Amino acid sequence: MLEQVNIAILGASGYIGADAVRLALGHPNLNIVALAADTKAGRNYGEIYPHLGWQALPRLVRAEEINWGKVDAVFGCLPHGASEEILSKLPSHLIVLDHSADFRLKRADTYAEWYGREHTSPELLDEAVYGLTEWYRPALRQARMIACPGCYPTAVLLALLPGISGGLISPDDLIIDAKSGVSGAGRAVKEANLFCEIGESTHPYGVGRHRHMPEIEQELGFAAAKAVMVNFTPHLLPMSRGELVTCHVKLATGVSVTDVRKSLVERYAYEPFVHVLAEGESPSTRQVRGSNHCVVNVFADRLPGRAIVIAAIDNLVKGSAGQAIQNLNVRMGWQETLGLNQAPLFP
Amino acid sequence: MLEQVNIAILGASGYIGADAVRLALGHPNLNIVALAADTKAGRNYGEIYPHLGWQALPRLVRAEEINWGKVDAVFGCLPHGASEEILSKLPSHLIVLDHSADFRLKRADTYAEWYGREHTSPELLDEAVYGLTEWYRPALRQARMIACPGCYPTAVLLALLPGISGGLISPDDLIIDAKSGVSGAGRAVKEANLFCEIGESTHPYGVGRHRHMPEIEQELGFAAAKAVMVNFTPHLLPMSRGELVTCHVKLATGVSVTDVRKSLVERYAYEPFVHVLAEGESPSTRQVRGSNHCVVNVFADRLPGRAIVIAAIDNLVKGSAGQAIQNLNVRMGWQETLGLNQAPLFP
Amino acid sequence: MLEQVNIAILGASGYIGADAVRLALGHPNLNIVALAADTKAGRNYGEIYPHLGWQALPRLVRAEEINWGKVDAVFGCLPHGASEEILSKLPSHLIVLDHSADFRLKRADTYAEWYGREHTSPELLDEAVYGLTEWYRPALRQARMIACPGCYPTAVLLALLPGISGGLISPDDLIIDAKSGVSGAGRAVKEANLFCEIGESTHPYGVGRHRHMPEIEQELGFAAAKAVMVNFTPHLLPMSRGELVTCHVKLATGVSVTDVRKSLVERYAYEPFVHVLAEGESPSTRQVRGSNHCVVNVFADRLPGRAIVIAAIDNLVKGSAGQAIQNLNVRMGWQETLGLNQAPLFP
Amino acid sequence: MLEQVNIAILGASGYIGADAVRLALGHPNLNIVALAADTKAGRNYGEIYPHLGWQALPRLVRAEEINWGKVDAVFGCLPHGASEEILSKLPSHLIVLDHSADFRLKRADTYAEWYGREHTSPELLDEAVYGLTEWYRPALRQARMIACPGCYPTAVLLALLPGISGGLISPDDLIIDAKSGVSGAGRAVKEANLFCEIGESTHPYGVGRHRHMPEIEQELGFAAAKAVMVNFTPHLLPMSRGELVTCHVKLATGVSVTDVRKSLVERYAYEPFVHVLAEGESPSTRQVRGSNHCVVNVFADRLPGRAIVIAAIDNLVKGSAGQAIQNLNVRMGWQETLGLNQAPLFP
Repeated sequence: MLEQVNIAILGASGYIGADAVRLALGHPNLNIVALAADTKAGRNYGEIYPHLGWQALPRLVRAEEINWGKVDAVFGCLPHGASEEILSKLPSHLIVLDHSADFRLKRADTYAEWYGREHTSPELLDEAVYGLTEWYRPALRQARMIACPGCYPTAVLLALLPGISGGLISPDDLIIDAKSGVSGAGRAVKEANLFCEIGESTHPYGVGRHRHMPEIEQELGFAAAKAVMVNFTPHLLPMSRGELVTCHVKLATGVSVTDVRKSLVERYAYEPFVHVLAEGESPSTRQVRGSNHCVVNVFADRLPGRAIVIAAIDNLVKGSAGQAIQNLNVRMGWQETLGLNQAPLFP
Repeated sequence: MLEQVNIAILGASGYIGADAVRLALGHPNLNIVALAADTKAGRNYGEIYPHLGWQALPRLVRAEEINWGKVDAVFGCLPHGASEEILSKLPSHLIVLDHSADFRLKRADTYAEWYGREHTSPELLDEAVYGLTEWYRPALRQARMIACPGCYPTAVLLALLPGISGGLISPDDLIIDAKSGVSGAGRAVKEANLFCEIGESTHPYGVGRHRHMPEIEQELGFAAAKAVMVNFTPHLLPMSRGELVTCHVKLATGVSVTDVRKSLVERYAYEPFVHVLAEGESPSTRQVRGSNHCVVNVFADRLPGRAIVIAAIDNLVKGSAGQAIQNLNVRMGWQETLGLNQAPLFP
Repeated sequence: MLEQVNIAILGASGYIGADAVRLALGHPNLNIVALAADTKAGRNYGEIYPHLGWQALPRLVRAEEINWGKVDAVFGCLPHGASEEILSKLPSHLIVLDHSADFRLKRADTYAEWYGREHTSPELLDEAVYGLTEWYRPALRQARMIACPGCYPTAVLLALLPGISGGLISPDDLIIDAKSGVSGAGRAVKEANLFCEIGESTHPYGVGRHRHMPEIEQELGFAAAKAVMVNFTPHLLPMSRGELVTCHVKLATGVSVTDVRKSLVERYAYEPFVHVLAEGESPSTRQVRGSNHCVVNVFADRLPGRAIVIAAIDNLVKGSAGQAIQNLNVRMGWQETLGLNQAPLFP
Repeated sequence: MLEQVNIAILGASGYIGADAVRLALGHPNLNIVALAADTKAGRNYGEIYPHLGWQALPRLVRAEEINWGKVDAVFGCLPHGASEEILSKLPSHLIVLDHSADFRLKRADTYAEWYGREHTSPELLDEAVYGLTEWYRPALRQARMIACPGCYPTAVLLALLPGISGGLISPDDLIIDAKSGVSGAGRAVKEANLFCEIGESTHPYGVGRHRHMPEIEQELGFAAAKAVMVNFTPHLLPMSRGELVTCHVKLATGVSVTDVRKSLVERYAYEPFVHVLAEGESPSTRQVRGSNHCVVNVFADRLPGRAIVIAAIDNLVKGSAGQAIQNLNVRMGWQETLGLNQAPLFP
């Protein structure tokens, strides 16, 4: 068991990359040895992210400049496609924690349908382990390629897997109404993400067809042992961090909300990062801001035979960089909470 | 037909009251002759609302100090219960535009169930006209008591009534996931509404049981000609104004999203304040901020046989004070848009 | 006196352009006959600004496509340089309301120093009237070319001109600490203006050298009848609209804060849009949001012989499009408040 | 040297208290043994602060219920007056870290003038050490009573003390224009702090007379070895955390901005939490959010002989709970950064 792991972060100029840096700096066993961002290669990281300006960090380089012999694990924070191209060719001694969608789906045809390109290393789809820590721990312990889940899927799956896999919630007619802060869209410089466009407003996007759908459907399908389709309707909110998913579900025959609640409580009783709230307490994104925690609860629906399961996470932490580190902790045999003990920041 | 109407506003110290003042000031036929707010009686309105500090406005009084002989119409912006007590005893020459829930429900037992008190003037429940302008125009023309809809019901009903009344949308399993700015909670001084509690966060509230439910169910029930129950799940967002409702619905057999779209387009073709957006365009609360407009659209759901109908309004305007003025315009036989022509404020 | 004026807006795709459209739509005497934005020519205005999507507006064109024979007045909302190039060549029958800096400075050498380019039509610098309505009304009545002030200068000059021109405030050591919402930076797609960069944060910018300085110095210099230099230090705030300037000034010998207050009260007693607040009342940007109003007040400083003069405006209205319309109203001999009577939007 | 310290937090229901809890939870040597909040005694801390709901924390009690024999250090987060009354009577073995103003001023008459009450334990004013860590380290090593500075004074003094104590900045005509997030006002339930009142707006408050003035003046006076008066003008911003102070100062004769910069760089070269930014880089509150860091810089003023010194902190961390822990680290002889190593949270 390695005591210290040297990490490289690809796509370090994005928000996920920056949060990976933030968390790695506070992790006793991780050393950042390379930060890559092609368009900003040559610059100091503190110029790109002034809040980390006084940290000792390597200068940004191009990915091909990295000396992989000195690296043990790599965090991929690249767009899909670009991610696959680079990560599929890395030396095999590297542990890969990818944040793109390129290795999350098991079926290359589903990938092609949703991402508009053929997958060129489909053999890796089999090898990759889906990095939803709480549900893939055994496989993660020996994984080489870890496909970290999208932020939305993380929240949705933590909310629904206990009920779906336990047969308490019907896999039919799943309606997932999601709300997200803007950092989920990354640091891409687009008019739609300007302060004045987002402030004091909300709107849905990708209605009927959002790229996180197939990933949710795949994992719920595994749990239900049948093909699953979902309504997934995300909304953008005037906040930077935080994601809340409101899952309107049908209960299986004879199942009560209490049963679902019990399944959540039991499933997550020993999980350090997933917290089933007290009966009636609403999950809120401010409960998890800046932390790797997830809060979840289930509520009775006024419509008989239905329930509402709600979960909240910080999209950049449990939804991205934090979960990647959690996965790496598992992979290395370290304590799972190492470097992830920060309490949420409120207010 | 009166050319000028003298109005009094009860509960003028709340946000709905302030927006009624703002809009009345810009209305050519309305004169504000009395502003009442018991706890702040005696103070200048500009002390309470500095943004109106240089307007010529009457000093705040207690409701019982108003000389009703000089008043033609009264805007009730009081809490339920208090509203009924005062409004039920007003002289009969007054046109009443009430923003409380006291006269919205037709059944006194439903009212008692949801509001925890017996209604003491149930005869007025029959008399009162539900003030959803676009759907009750004929009755509003001669109404004396107008029960203005809640902000959420306004958005939900504008979104769903064409489909439900036309038999295109099933009245079963209606799932309404709603998002609101904080002004919907009024100016009540509560910890939960502090800037630091709300900023950069979102959470659901009243899950499974919110007081706007029975009102939505009543009106959808009238449209469906059968009892209707809904899942109504509101969320609080870090913004002051704006309300967006995402209605996940089942289509009636053989009905397509195109059919629903057509029914919306046809129903609202000549409505000055309800706009069906272009195919695929997302409703956004920034499109209607500060205005009496409502934007609505319908989207295909990935789940077969379902659709998503989405509407956005400004909760204080079309959801409250603006619709009250629209109703008064109808009642007086004036042009319906009088005083309500302001374009939305963006950014 | 024309009863109806046809206007064209150049640079209509920016936030100032959009607010000019919003206000012109509510103005009884203005008709929008052309909207130009080179990069978005050919598109519907509602695609660019969905909150105006249901208004009858001309399609966006390139500036050179405009038939100037049908236009009476033009609103220039272009960047400096581009503005001069186009506006200096327009037919002479047009009234020009320019929002760029190109015609604000009287000295071509000052312009060249601050804007890094030679002025190619310096004769127009003499002709142009500085459009600070309250201080240039007589000249505005016959102006052809009106150089509308920058947003910051508008607030600063309204705050300081009475004291400086009256000799009550020393023109030396003027320290102007300014705070602005993000819309002042326009709709330019820059990383620095993304929601996540701006939200929950503040920082100064252009410290020691901001382009609004020479304009402030010029006008204060005219009032003081001597060369004036100022410390002008702007800060960016996490809000879309609003500008507040805190002017830390030295009083002339023997002058008291009461004297300054009196000069403000007297100077603005009959101004419809400038309001001196009650003693001790703090100006706030929420008092003027979306409106053409300005609130101003003066406070005693703990340091003897000094005072603090504070003003707030909406940068897009009194600071830009609203003041342009106010100027046009003056120019046309119309009531100065025509189309500008909207009360501020709060909350 | 104790290895583990048991702490009690008085006034634990406020925001400073909550951040003290957050930070103490991440501190390897601190154990929270008592949390007091009179009005909320008996409740679980997680009910009051749901973001800490899954932490093992003692139930809230009344201050008089605390068994002081088991406590080593106490964090006072009480209002002034109340703080003195309780803290002055505590057993003498306790290390006291007070966040109120009660022990910051050395002169009881100044205290009485600004706080409107006589100080009843003036002997403690002498004993108390002013807890601006970077400037009082030697005295803090043996202090029993530590008067932690106000949030504004922390930022102002870190910005100005090098220049004032070095004679580079004139102690006359100091103009300090400050900007703060709303959490500085605490969790007090006041209309002025509601989301709708604060959102999308800014305003100054306490102009000419704010209670942090005497504290700033005292410490700058010690540094200048003469009585100092300041203009201190705070503004409220629509954000929860963060404080930025813009100090407009006169340079001593013959002193340049470069000299001031050099004094800052030298003074803070070995400070773990104070960072002098690169020349021209603006301090921003997002650089320090959630962390104990302070960023500072100095800029040339357009006015000759003047400069602008700007600093930013997180008001709840370096401005309150974080600095208290930093002080305790110093007092205990621990590494000063213990438990304070979190990188700032951005975005």
